[in-house]
Amino acid sequence: MLIGYTRPEEMNEVMDLSEMIRGMAREAKLSARRLRSARSSEKDAALRFMAEGIVARKEEIGKINAEDVSLARQKGLSSAMIDRLTLDEKTIASMVAGLQEVITLPDPVGEVTGMWKRPNGLQVGRVRIPLGVIGFIYESRPNVTVDAAALCLKSGNAVILKGGSEAINSNLILNEILGGAVEKAGLPEKSIQVIPSTEHEAVGILLGLDDYVDIIIPRGGEELIRFVAENSRIPVLKHYKGVCHVYVDEFADVEMARNICFNAKVQRPGVCNAMETMLVHQKVAPSFLPEMIREFMSAGVEIRGCEELLKLIPGLKLAEEDDWPAEFLDLVLAVKIVENMDEALDHIEKYGSNHTEAIVTENYERSQEFLQRVDASVVLVNASTRFNDGFELGLGAEIGINTAKLHAYGPMSLKELTITKFIVLGSGQVRT
Amino acid sequence: MLIGYTRPEEMNEVMDLSEMIRGMAREAKLSARRLRSARSSEKDAALRFMAEGIVARKEEIGKINAEDVSLARQKGLSSAMIDRLTLDEKTIASMVAGLQEVITLPDPVGEVTGMWKRPNGLQVGRVRIPLGVIGFIYESRPNVTVDAAALCLKSGNAVILKGGSEAINSNLILNEILGGAVEKAGLPEKSIQVIPSTEHEAVGILLGLDDYVDIIIPRGGEELIRFVAENSRIPVLKHYKGVCHVYVDEFADVEMARNICFNAKVQRPGVCNAMETMLVHQKVAPSFLPEMIREFMSAGVEIRGCEELLKLIPGLKLAEEDDWPAEFLDLVLAVKIVENMDEALDHIEKYGSNHTEAIVTENYERSQEFLQRVDASVVLVNASTRFNDGFELGLGAEIGINTAKLHAYGPMSLKELTITKFIVLGSGQVRT
Repeated sequence: MLIGYTRPEEMNEVMDLSEMIRGMAREAKLSARRLRSARSSEKDAALRFMAEGIVARKEEIGKINAEDVSLARQKGLSSAMIDRLTLDEKTIASMVAGLQEVITLPDPVGEVTGMWKRPNGLQVGRVRIPLGVIGFIYESRPNVTVDAAALCLKSGNAVILKGGSEAINSNLILNEILGGAVEKAGLPEKSIQVIPSTEHEAVGILLGLDDYVDIIIPRGGEELIRFVAENSRIPVLKHYKGVCHVYVDEFADVEMARNICFNAKVQRPGVCNAMETMLVHQKVAPSFLPEMIREFMSAGVEIRGCEELLKLIPGLKLAEEDDWPAEFLDLVLAVKIVENMDEALDHIEKYGSNHTEAIVTENYERSQEFLQRVDASVVLVNASTRFNDGFELGLGAEIGINTAKLHAYGPMSLKELTITKFIVLGSGQVRT
Repeated sequence: MLIGYTRPEEMNEVMDLSEMIRGMAREAKLSARRLRSARSSEKDAALRFMAEGIVARKEEIGKINAEDVSLARQKGLSSAMIDRLTLDEKTIASMVAGLQEVITLPDPVGEVTGMWKRPNGLQVGRVRIPLGVIGFIYESRPNVTVDAAALCLKSGNAVILKGGSEAINSNLILNEILGGAVEKAGLPEKSIQVIPSTEHEAVGILLGLDDYVDIIIPRGGEELIRFVAENSRIPVLKHYKGVCHVYVDEFADVEMARNICFNAKVQRPGVCNAMETMLVHQKVAPSFLPEMIREFMSAGVEIRGCEELLKLIPGLKLAEEDDWPAEFLDLVLAVKIVENMDEALDHIEKYGSNHTEAIVTENYERSQEFLQRVDASVVLVNASTRFNDGFELGLGAEIGINTAKLHAYGPMSLKELTITKFIVLGSGQVRT
C-alpha cells in the first residue's frame, strides 16, 4: 500500500495535492485556536449533532459505503478487509453509541492539575489545554473516523484524518456530517477534516507539516506505522506491535494461571494486547503445563515450545528464534520454561514490546519485583493482558496505545490528548 | 560549527565513531535497566560522591579546563565563549551547590499519581518511572555537564552527553569523576557517559540511535537546535527561541507595568525568557509610554517602534517586519501600540514562540481571557516573563524548556524526565 511513495522533494507533479493539504492544515490550525477556548457545552452540542446527523442520514451513509464496498470487492480485497470496511446497521449504531459515550466523559480542558504559592507571593498553577492539531492516519475502518473525530473534538483539538483509500467515499460523507455538526454548534467546521485523496503521497505530505500539526497518531499494521515513524517530522505517538507475555511464577495459583493465560490468548487473538508468549517457572511446569496445553490445543491454538517443554510434553512443535519476538495476532503461542523469574525478566526485556506484561503469582515479593522491574505501558498482577485498553482501565474511549515513553505511555484517552501549561498569577512581582 | 556534517549513509570513513557511540548507547540502555529500580538513597549517595569528587579533584579540573581555555584562545573564540568555557572557583562551587540542591529534591520515581478500582475489582494505578536513556546535546559550558547528569541520574535515567568540542577535556575529566561516583554508590558507571569525540558527526550518529535512546534534549543556539530537530529519529524536547511579549492593557497599573517591563527586558537580556516585544494598549500609551521609553533608553535599550509609537514619541527608530519575530537576546526592544487586546492576541499568535507571555492589567475579565486564549508554556498576569524557570516556578533545577506541546510544556525538572506506566493489581480477572 505504501509502495510508490514519493519524497516531498521530488513532488512537482503532486504540488496541487501538497498545496491542498497545506491549506487544510492551515485551516486546522485556525480552528484549533478557536477550539482552545470552546466551552464543554459547545463541544458536547457538536457531538450530539454528529450523532443526530448520522442517524438522520444513515441510509445515505449506507448507500455510499456500499459503493466503497463494491469497488473493494472488484479490487479483490480480502473478506476481512471488506468486513472492516462495511458500515451496517450495527456499526452505525455503535458509532452513535460511541459519540454518546464521549459526551458523558468529563472535558479534560481547563482542569487545574495543581496550584501552589511561591515565597514571593506568585501563584503558580498547571492547567490542561488541548495539544492543537492532530494528524490521524489509519487503515480501512470508516467507523474509526467518527471515534477519532469525537475524541479530538472533545479534547479541544482540530484533527486531519487520512483513512484508507478503500474507505474514501464513506469517510467523506461522514466528514460532511461531522463538520456540519461542529458548525451547527457554533465551532469551526474545519475542526474535522478528512483528506479527500486516495493518493499515497498524501501521507508523506501531512507528515512534513510540522508548522501546523502538533502530533501524529497512526493506527494500523506495523508496516504503516513504521512508514509513518520513519518519515514524520512531527512527533508520533504509536506502538509498532504488542508482544505480550504472561509469566506464570512458581508460586502461581495454577487454576487462576490457566484462566488468565487462556483468556489472554484465546478471547480475541487478533489484537495487540493478546498474549503471544507464555513464560512458565520450571517448578510449576509439571502441575500447570500439561492441562494448559491440552486446553489450548482443544481451542485450536498452535503451540511452539522451547526444548524443555518438548521434554515435558513430546510431540509439540519446537519454537524457532523468530517465534520469540513474533506478534502472531492469531491462535499461535510460543511457550518457554524458565529457570527463575530473572530469566523471565531477561526474556521480556529482550523480546517484549513495552506494551503489556503480566505475572501470575501468590507471592508478594515476586509481584512487587515484577511490577517494578518490567518496563511496559501496563504491568499486571493476576489479571489478563487483555485489560490494556482505555475503557477497561477506566479512562474511557481511547484513540490508540503509545509504547514510546513520551507524553502518554499506554492507552490514550481524552487526557492524553492534552498537555498542561503554566499559569502565573502575580501582583507586580519582578525577578531580582 | 555544524557545517560539514556527514549523513549516516555516507559514513564509511566514520564507522569507528559510529560503532563507538552505538556501543555507548548499548551500555546506557543496560545501565537504565538497573537505574529503573535504584533506590533514592543509592542515587543520592551517587550525587554526594559526585560533589565530594569534584571538591577533591578541583585543582586537576582547573588545570585540564585551563588547557581547553588556552586552546580556545588560540582558535580565537569570542570572549563570551571563553567565559562560558571557564571553570573557576566560583563555577566549581556552583556545580557542587547544584548537586546538593538536586539531593534535596524529592525522587520522582515510584510516585503513584493516582489509583482507582474498577467495577470488576481490578485496582488500576499510575506510577512514575524514568524515561530510560536521554541524549543531551549542548554547547560550550562544562558546568552544564554536571547539572544535566545530576538531574538525569536523580530521575533514574541514563544519559549520553555531547558537549561542545572546545570543552572536551573538561567534560571528560568531569565524566570520570561522575561515573566513578555513580559506581561507588553501587550503580552502573555507564549511567553517565560523555562522548569522547570532537567530531560533528557524533551528533548525527547519536540522533539515529532510536533503538537505544528515548529522548533528545538539545541546549544551545537556534542553529544547533534546528539541526537536532531536523536530523533526529528520536523525539526532541526543545525550544527554538523565546520571543516573549508583555501586553500592557488599558487597565494596567502603569507603575507596575513599568517595573515589570523594565525587569523583563533589562534584568538579563541574553536569556530566552526576556521580553523581546512590548505591546501597549492605545488608551494607556500616553500615560505609560513616554516615561517607560525614557527609562529604557537610559538603561541603554534600543527601541524599535511601530508608526503609532513614532507619532507619540518622534525620533525613535521604526521597527521593520523582521523585528516582530526577532529574539534579540540583547538590549533591543520592539514596541507596538495596539488598538485593543484582540490585536495584541493576534500579534502574539502570529509572532510568539509559545514560550512566555505576560499581561499587565487590573481588569479581571482581561486577565482571565489572556490566560485562556494565549498558547504559551507559561502565561503570566502582573509578573515578569523572567519567572519562566524551573526554580522560580517551584519545580527545582531544570534541564531546559520545551515549547512543543508534547510530554512537558515549559520548564523541565525531575518530574518531566519521567513518565507514568499503569500497574494493575488483580485477583484472577479475565476479560469477557
